[in-house]
Amino acid sequence: MAKRLVGTCMFGQSGGPTSVINASASGVIQEALNQNDITKVYGLANGIKGILDENFYNMEHEDIKELDLLKTTPSSALGSVRYKLADADADDTDYKRILEVFKKYGVRYFFYNGGNDSMDTCNKISKFMQKSGYECRVMGVPKTIDNDLFGTDHCPGYGSAAKYIATSTMEVYQDARVYDTGIVAILEVMGRNAGWLTAAAALAADKGLGPDLIYLPELPFNMDKFLADVKKVYEKTGKVIVAVSEGTKDKNGTYISEYGTDTAKQKDAFGHSQLGGLAYTLAGYVKKEVGCKVRAIEFSLLQRCAAHLGSLTDVNEAFMAGRAAVRHAVDGETDKMVAFERVEGCEYKCNIKLLDLNSVANKEKKIPPEWINEEGNGLKSGFIEYALPLIQGESRPPVEDGLPRFAKLKKIKDL
Amino acid sequence: MAKRLVGTCMFGQSGGPTSVINASASGVIQEALNQNDITKVYGLANGIKGILDENFYNMEHEDIKELDLLKTTPSSALGSVRYKLADADADDTDYKRILEVFKKYGVRYFFYNGGNDSMDTCNKISKFMQKSGYECRVMGVPKTIDNDLFGTDHCPGYGSAAKYIATSTMEVYQDARVYDTGIVAILEVMGRNAGWLTAAAALAADKGLGPDLIYLPELPFNMDKFLADVKKVYEKTGKVIVAVSEGTKDKNGTYISEYGTDTAKQKDAFGHSQLGGLAYTLAGYVKKEVGCKVRAIEFSLLQRCAAHLGSLTDVNEAFMAGRAAVRHAVDGETDKMVAFERVEGCEYKCNIKLLDLNSVANKEKKIPPEWINEEGNGLKSGFIEYALPLIQGESRPPVEDGLPRFAKLKKIKDL
Repeated sequence: MAKRLVGTCMFGQSGGPTSVINASASGVIQEALNQNDITKVYGLANGIKGILDENFYNMEHEDIKELDLLKTTPSSALGSVRYKLADADADDTDYKRILEVFKKYGVRYFFYNGGNDSMDTCNKISKFMQKSGYECRVMGVPKTIDNDLFGTDHCPGYGSAAKYIATSTMEVYQDARVYDTGIVAILEVMGRNAGWLTAAAALAADKGLGPDLIYLPELPFNMDKFLADVKKVYEKTGKVIVAVSEGTKDKNGTYISEYGTDTAKQKDAFGHSQLGGLAYTLAGYVKKEVGCKVRAIEFSLLQRCAAHLGSLTDVNEAFMAGRAAVRHAVDGETDKMVAFERVEGCEYKCNIKLLDLNSVANKEKKIPPEWINEEGNGLKSGFIEYALPLIQGESRPPVEDGLPRFAKLKKIKDL
Repeated sequence: MAKRLVGTCMFGQSGGPTSVINASASGVIQEALNQNDITKVYGLANGIKGILDENFYNMEHEDIKELDLLKTTPSSALGSVRYKLADADADDTDYKRILEVFKKYGVRYFFYNGGNDSMDTCNKISKFMQKSGYECRVMGVPKTIDNDLFGTDHCPGYGSAAKYIATSTMEVYQDARVYDTGIVAILEVMGRNAGWLTAAAALAADKGLGPDLIYLPELPFNMDKFLADVKKVYEKTGKVIVAVSEGTKDKNGTYISEYGTDTAKQKDAFGHSQLGGLAYTLAGYVKKEVGCKVRAIEFSLLQRCAAHLGSLTDVNEAFMAGRAAVRHAVDGETDKMVAFERVEGCEYKCNIKLLDLNSVANKEKKIPPEWINEEGNGLKSGFIEYALPLIQGESRPPVEDGLPRFAKLKKIKDL
């Protein structure tokens, strides 16, 4: 058994929010407050920026009822951040500052909740602390609607976003087909390099109420093939529903959303292009080629914050992942990310496993080619079998006065 | 008491679908099937086009369970239509055809479910039948997310759309403010001439989780004032949430969505411009003026088909309106639209009243000026008191396999 380590815990949220990242926060904070070895629990304002700025809240002042409400409160209650740490070898300023703050507050446990970039941050901090000989147990808690973290069966946040996308697609399917005139509806779904979210529209198609065509960023997008696909369905039925990933690129690596637009494109702190507007771009091409009515629909932020339509499986797993991170750290684990391993068998069951942060950081998990159909415009049953269990169960916030009641944290800076 | 009239009933759905138009269909069909004086119940495929084309379904073959499921099935299950009848004086071809079909099938009851344009259609058919001396009781059943029908306290469809908009706005509010960097998020809401839907975002603001600024089509939009408003909030808080109606126009009557865009604009059969893209247009202006990150979010079709987030009050009233139309017609009423009258008092209660179709057709109800704030960028408490009762109660379809189970009609053409 690992030796006991007594000290303060810091917890931060990072990257794009999800419907269930606060469920993980609830798990981490409630479990940390219960652990004897953890003497104080600080919630970081805006992730690692909260360390750098010494800006964090003492979680012991929060009401348990509000911490429980975090399970159904979307977005990152502590605030998030997109801040890329330099390589410590090139510039260790931030790392020294983090070490200074950790020492000042006796931080012996650090939990970081995020996606690919956040796991990179988490890994870098972990390695620097090891190198510095400062004992601090560092654990990553996965979160991303993109579902692209390496080594885990799936990521908290994906199930709820997938449920939202599938449900909304089924609803749009009903709506878009209501007239006896032709229509092409193009649904734009988030996902930069991995098509997991867009693929979720196939869950609607599996019920007979979903897209005719699905385009993922895993395959190069060919405009001529796309237009031919659309025309083929249109000529048969007069109604075409398309789901397409915002990150779709052509074979030269050019984002399709950049075709023929003059929108000034932004890049975020990680150098990722700010996407969006693809549905409108494609709608323009379809309009010109097919000539019928075309609807461009973007799920936009709605798909990642729709806590009113959460997957209970997802919420429970996100909470469990948070608790597991704390328990394992107290038991001696460090430098790991909590991950899920699906148990084989008829009934869905996932166990917690731990992955080395090294093995996770800066890797992306994409949709296996064998789950994509030969035409490259749809998903096969393998994907449905994978994704369907993840959207089971209904989670929604309590309703007060007809509207959701989200958690209200006091955020008291009693340090 | 009016004399008994025995014969066939025809029912059609028309105009843009809503989350609850099928709840009215359920009310009409189930009530009509129960009435002794109604010998057959036909559901029209695509509204009045179903009459012209003799394309309709015999509703007695439908399972009661599926007719009940219509209450939580979005969009128009029988199919909708946007078809403008000519003035009978100018061209009575369509009217003669309708009369011919009514006579052929012994149609003595005609129920039409729709908004402004549909009530115009309903009124014209009613008047032509009267003029022709053909006895047919004609009743309009109101439906529109736009809430702009004249003479009724509110319209079925509005409460659910308002609940969706308010809830989603609260969720987006949580999400858009998550970073410690500046952001302006612009939410585009449906509504051509009346701002009821956009105003629903004020329900979120009333909970402290909504837009800072709301722009309605009731007032002329001034770009300079808008940009000054945004900058003022931005300089104070660094976060600005704006809700704006797609139909916003400047003082010259030009749609703001048409500013600086090269998108080919379409017009529908009623000569209305096909709107959309306003959020992006405004985002461009804000980006240039304020320079921060800007998000353009369109609720698009989602706001009118999100049955998973219906208002139970709305669903129940939509069903009740359908039943009332049938009962009143059997009792002898004709040439009327079913409407709601709010009972004064602390607790919300609405009674059914009947309005002359003449008094409803081609009129629009807008937001009273006294509910709009002095700055013209927000709503006052009068609106909240009006709208809040309409979003109460939770309605959602039964869930099977993690996804909504919508009604499946057989649509048998046994005539």
